[in-house]
Amino acid sequence: MSILQIGAGGVGWVIAHKAAQNNDILGDITIASRTISKCEKIIDSIKGRNNLKDPARKLEARAVDADDVAALVALIKEVKPGLVINAGPPWINVTVMEACYQARVSYLDTSVAVDLCSEGQQVPEAYDPQWAFREKFEAAGITGILGAGFDPGVVSVFAAYANKHLFDEIDTIDVMDVNAGDHGKKFATNFDPETNMLEIQGDSFFWENDEWKQVPCHTRMMEFDFPLVGSHKVYSMAHDEVRSLKEFIPAKRIEFWMGFGDRYLNYFNCMRDIGLLSPDPVTLQDGTVVEPLKVLKALLPDPTSLAPGYTGKTCIGTWVQGKKDGKPRSVFVYNNADHEVAYEDVEHQAIAYTTGVPAITAALLYFQGDWKGHGVFNIEQLDPDPFLELMPRIGLDWGVEELEAKAPHINILK
Amino acid sequence: MSILQIGAGGVGWVIAHKAAQNNDILGDITIASRTISKCEKIIDSIKGRNNLKDPARKLEARAVDADDVAALVALIKEVKPGLVINAGPPWINVTVMEACYQARVSYLDTSVAVDLCSEGQQVPEAYDPQWAFREKFEAAGITGILGAGFDPGVVSVFAAYANKHLFDEIDTIDVMDVNAGDHGKKFATNFDPETNMLEIQGDSFFWENDEWKQVPCHTRMMEFDFPLVGSHKVYSMAHDEVRSLKEFIPAKRIEFWMGFGDRYLNYFNCMRDIGLLSPDPVTLQDGTVVEPLKVLKALLPDPTSLAPGYTGKTCIGTWVQGKKDGKPRSVFVYNNADHEVAYEDVEHQAIAYTTGVPAITAALLYFQGDWKGHGVFNIEQLDPDPFLELMPRIGLDWGVEELEAKAPHINILK
Repeated sequence: MSILQIGAGGVGWVIAHKAAQNNDILGDITIASRTISKCEKIIDSIKGRNNLKDPARKLEARAVDADDVAALVALIKEVKPGLVINAGPPWINVTVMEACYQARVSYLDTSVAVDLCSEGQQVPEAYDPQWAFREKFEAAGITGILGAGFDPGVVSVFAAYANKHLFDEIDTIDVMDVNAGDHGKKFATNFDPETNMLEIQGDSFFWENDEWKQVPCHTRMMEFDFPLVGSHKVYSMAHDEVRSLKEFIPAKRIEFWMGFGDRYLNYFNCMRDIGLLSPDPVTLQDGTVVEPLKVLKALLPDPTSLAPGYTGKTCIGTWVQGKKDGKPRSVFVYNNADHEVAYEDVEHQAIAYTTGVPAITAALLYFQGDWKGHGVFNIEQLDPDPFLELMPRIGLDWGVEELEAKAPHINILK
Repeated sequence: MSILQIGAGGVGWVIAHKAAQNNDILGDITIASRTISKCEKIIDSIKGRNNLKDPARKLEARAVDADDVAALVALIKEVKPGLVINAGPPWINVTVMEACYQARVSYLDTSVAVDLCSEGQQVPEAYDPQWAFREKFEAAGITGILGAGFDPGVVSVFAAYANKHLFDEIDTIDVMDVNAGDHGKKFATNFDPETNMLEIQGDSFFWENDEWKQVPCHTRMMEFDFPLVGSHKVYSMAHDEVRSLKEFIPAKRIEFWMGFGDRYLNYFNCMRDIGLLSPDPVTLQDGTVVEPLKVLKALLPDPTSLAPGYTGKTCIGTWVQGKKDGKPRSVFVYNNADHEVAYEDVEHQAIAYTTGVPAITAALLYFQGDWKGHGVFNIEQLDPDPFLELMPRIGLDWGVEELEAKAPHINILK
């Protein structure tokens, strides 16, 4: 047994730590990235935290260009992993899946392939390039597990769990995500500023009454009282799991909501108003051409620099409303993650931690044979029970809160 | 008689229009700038507005590098003006004064030579490089008139007028500047964004009880009820005339205040927090090196583009408190300028208009012999009476408001 991990950013950092903590089951670990020094830095951190459970197992760094299918196939054939874990940026998903198909090895990722904000690449079509591999993977006798992070990922498992155990009929699925942590900076993003700012500017898509609805960003808002971290304003946003949940768990409305503080939104609106969030190039007086968003990226703190000293908790969960035994029911299935606990465990913050822990939980279920089957599967298509049983031992608890059943109060802004 | 104008930005635009409207006295006009097309555009505007009073007089464009003293001297010797009006950026003042000295021709400008925000070039030393020409100008039999815009400029004339006619003893001189106009943009600057943002970030200097005091920007605030435009928050800032008024009009406290709306300050603070107002270069991921402030300049609207459709009024004046005939007195000597009226007259907005009109008022007084004398003079050293009599005919009214005598309520922030 062994795994090959592609990608050495924040999520890759946590996945590698968690894989190392479970290398008695996962076996040898190879971490590959365009920049080999990023892999080596992760390996140093794993050794520094004493996170290699079985020190006899290999832990190696490799350089690879994940846009190059032939290079990926060659690396896979050399490493011979039981599973390729794609921890790279979303746009490499398709090349890595193609390489896995050609090399006949199973595949797992944590977010959808397409930029949800660009014209013609939006939520309704989000999974098309990856779902196109279904028959090929089935014919090749390999498994593809899509969206095995937290959101997408665990929130979809929560929905599958609610659908299996808590409801006879589901009306609404609202995925709720708030980071109530404090990194001590006036303004910073928790992951790549360019990706983050494009995502936040995009229109929101939600599924309602058998059709897709598209609205401008920050125009649908709710206040929600989260366990442990209290009441927060959350805003409707385009997100991967809205697309896949719509496919696999019937509901009248499916929507994703992210918490933004008034302070964060003020910075966001100011930067947008002056044109700093645009990817369209501008020409300076001396003739230099730059993309404003790339200038912002250079100005803001490197997200990986935020982890030391990051305090507070996140709360991400799935709010499901519907009927059970003929009566209205409303439940919130959720996790609280703590930035300091994450840092203590793997030297990173909770945003990356909540994505990396589920990926390794899913990988372990695949290796143990709890999740099997040939083809391509979104995580909510698989049995939620072994996943939710295992995840707390890998690092993330979960809970179920019964709420008063009533229609969400959605504020339409502007 | 003739004039040579150096500079073809916003202030140069208005100066040229106003010179043309008074070319029966000022004579031929030559407008020179590094970029000759900017001069030609102004000439087109003057002709389009029918602003050339005596069409027989010449109105010409020339190219000149104002950093090159020899080139300036050659141009002056060729044009043989009675006065050089420096309408260029502040950093050319010294080279233009040197050229005027070498060519034995009188000089006039509208702002001080140094950047008031850079280390070692601050308010107490602001006029040193230009005052160094006093003896040379006197010996050469020529006149230098410094700071003949609105602020610096008219506000200092107002102080001289108050000192001459309204007070026996002055306690405080507060120069108050608010632009209550609306350019319809979410955020824009009324003059060069780079200069504007550097100026606003700098420490404030004020003169109090026989010494200079230096405080961080936006930490001293007053609310002041301006004629016509109402109550506005104004903040203590470094400004040219604080230095020269201290030299020529004795007072216990001399300070400059500029109005900033909460909305403007919110944008300013946000941009500063993320590092966008810094002149220090940053390196982008692809290796491109840029100064954030120059990127901001490329993003914001060109200030000259704001003039059409600019509505509302400015109010700039000098609030003087002291004693007259043994009794406390408080007066506000001020002007209101209207953006739409300015545009109708010279195709520009009121910020540039209030700077250009006084410059031509002063030039006319020099040509008519009301202001004479050899050497270098700040405008408050000259007789205020003929200036205040002439200025309304050139385009700007003024008034005196008697206020209740009481100590200003200065809020210390942060």
